[in-house]
Amino acid sequence: MKIALDAMGGDEAPLKIVEGGLQALRESGNRFELVLVGRQDDIEKEIVRLGAGELNYSIVNAPDVIEMSDTPNLAIKQKPNSSIVVGLRIHQEGKVDAFVSAGNTGAVMSASTLILGRAAGVSRPTVGTPLPTVSGSCFVLDSGASSDCRPQHLAEFAVMGSIYASEIMQIRNPRVGLLNIGEERTKGNELALASYTLLEKSGLNFIGNVEGRDILMGKADVIVTDGFVGNIVLKFAESILPVLRARLIQYADKGIFQKLQALIAARTLRKALKGFSYEAYGGAPLLGVKGVTIIGHGSSTSLAVKNMVFRAEEMVSHRIAWLIENSIGKMDLKVD
Amino acid sequence: MKIALDAMGGDEAPLKIVEGGLQALRESGNRFELVLVGRQDDIEKEIVRLGAGELNYSIVNAPDVIEMSDTPNLAIKQKPNSSIVVGLRIHQEGKVDAFVSAGNTGAVMSASTLILGRAAGVSRPTVGTPLPTVSGSCFVLDSGASSDCRPQHLAEFAVMGSIYASEIMQIRNPRVGLLNIGEERTKGNELALASYTLLEKSGLNFIGNVEGRDILMGKADVIVTDGFVGNIVLKFAESILPVLRARLIQYADKGIFQKLQALIAARTLRKALKGFSYEAYGGAPLLGVKGVTIIGHGSSTSLAVKNMVFRAEEMVSHRIAWLIENSIGKMDLKVD
Repeated sequence: MKIALDAMGGDEAPLKIVEGGLQALRESGNRFELVLVGRQDDIEKEIVRLGAGELNYSIVNAPDVIEMSDTPNLAIKQKPNSSIVVGLRIHQEGKVDAFVSAGNTGAVMSASTLILGRAAGVSRPTVGTPLPTVSGSCFVLDSGASSDCRPQHLAEFAVMGSIYASEIMQIRNPRVGLLNIGEERTKGNELALASYTLLEKSGLNFIGNVEGRDILMGKADVIVTDGFVGNIVLKFAESILPVLRARLIQYADKGIFQKLQALIAARTLRKALKGFSYEAYGGAPLLGVKGVTIIGHGSSTSLAVKNMVFRAEEMVSHRIAWLIENSIGKMDLKVD
Repeated sequence: MKIALDAMGGDEAPLKIVEGGLQALRESGNRFELVLVGRQDDIEKEIVRLGAGELNYSIVNAPDVIEMSDTPNLAIKQKPNSSIVVGLRIHQEGKVDAFVSAGNTGAVMSASTLILGRAAGVSRPTVGTPLPTVSGSCFVLDSGASSDCRPQHLAEFAVMGSIYASEIMQIRNPRVGLLNIGEERTKGNELALASYTLLEKSGLNFIGNVEGRDILMGKADVIVTDGFVGNIVLKFAESILPVLRARLIQYADKGIFQKLQALIAARTLRKALKGFSYEAYGGAPLLGVKGVTIIGHGSSTSLAVKNMVFRAEEMVSHRIAWLIENSIGKMDLKVD
């Protein structure tokens, strides 16, 4: 198996990216080949610094870099020799089995759909994000790939999310919830109302509506919503720990006793919320394309990158892309 | 001034409701008259128990009760003698200046719009909810009154929210943000894109898009979105403290040392997050009707009820309903 890693994507690229990739190789005992895509000189410099010894890696040169601030569709056209475009092209050509990037999210999504193509039967590829809950984690999709959705899209997200949850998150018969503003089937906006009906006859383990307060409570394993709502909820969730930290710092300023309390609280929270860090989650998969793409946070650390590479490996060995194509074609997800 | 209080609404009605109302009277030194609406016998029983001495209250009998589980529109029709319908009717007739309820939210919203009527120039009344931030609080609307919105509605919410923020929250020239999935004006779903243009020419202090992560960070004072997104975000926010508590309890189970740490962490968080409790916020105002309605959480404590009554008093004395009618009529909030 060969996994391409975008060495240029992420706030601390290429250092932390190359480091995370090599760590994955080392920990796995060279179980796969890591293909580092990016500026050859820059990558080699990091490798010399980090020491790669007997590790099973290769480099594919890609002189252009798509920056975080670039407009996705424009950048893809104007930078055909960027690590994102080159990495996805060699994936499409079958030279690698997966592509992993912590770079410009919009560009990775667009280029994946454009270069790899949509899986048969899928009208909208989707990005799913694992979110921690009180009891484990849930998988929220769409995370922002599609702002305006139709009921059929949400039903497709549910199918893809269920496959991911059962194969990768190892949840048997995952409970699918529709994110909504009330428990009753009569609640919600037009999209939610129509999606409810479609999800009911999907053959999935649809448990009905889940509300905002149910997400972290772990009421469902797979939560579907449009990319507008999903993105807002996920970014809101991301801000919780920084807000707690800010409040504890303000509290610590009140005196020496308060400082001590705040320190203990911060340390305890860190331990009690272990697993709430995005680093452990191995990035967000783009589902519904002909291939495997894993998208990481711009601020990915080497630990996050390592877990993303392992996640890509799992997605390849579980043949997620094939499973999606195979199930979605057989289902009737059209609105009557 | 006379403020009607729905004595029957809320999980612990009438006890906690009557208690909170009387506390407001006592603290204010009988600055207004409290009109308790509900089952006379039940209310009198609580008053005897609590002791109301020289407090300036009266009772209006309303034998029916709209339950939390009742379907709002049906309940309003079938229970014309419920505390919600009676309380709003005496408000409409000018016998009281405001109506406060911690009862069935949907019923209070519908009955307010139906009985009081929409303010001139307002196409959709809206519920706004104050949310704590790192630096103070922001006002999010709509909180769930309107699931499917048009750009004009969001612009109206922005006007009403700005008036509330400047008059009641005492924020000069409140910054209005549009909840969206990116900072750039080209980001978002169809509703957000069109609303951006309209907000720009509203004459309000529109600061552009705010993302999910910006809400608690205090980037804007007034945040507008449709009631679907708003409701999901607000309910998600409500679940944060219970989730932290659940995680700390799990952590405490690991041993005596962990229990001690968890206790300190919980106590410190409680102090550091003071003001994050909904009880302090005085409920959620329904804006855009011909009158003053304050809606409270079903689980309102007497402290929450007291603050809701004070909030209603402020809304009356600041003539919020009049200010809204007066400004919204003068503005051009139509899509070209």
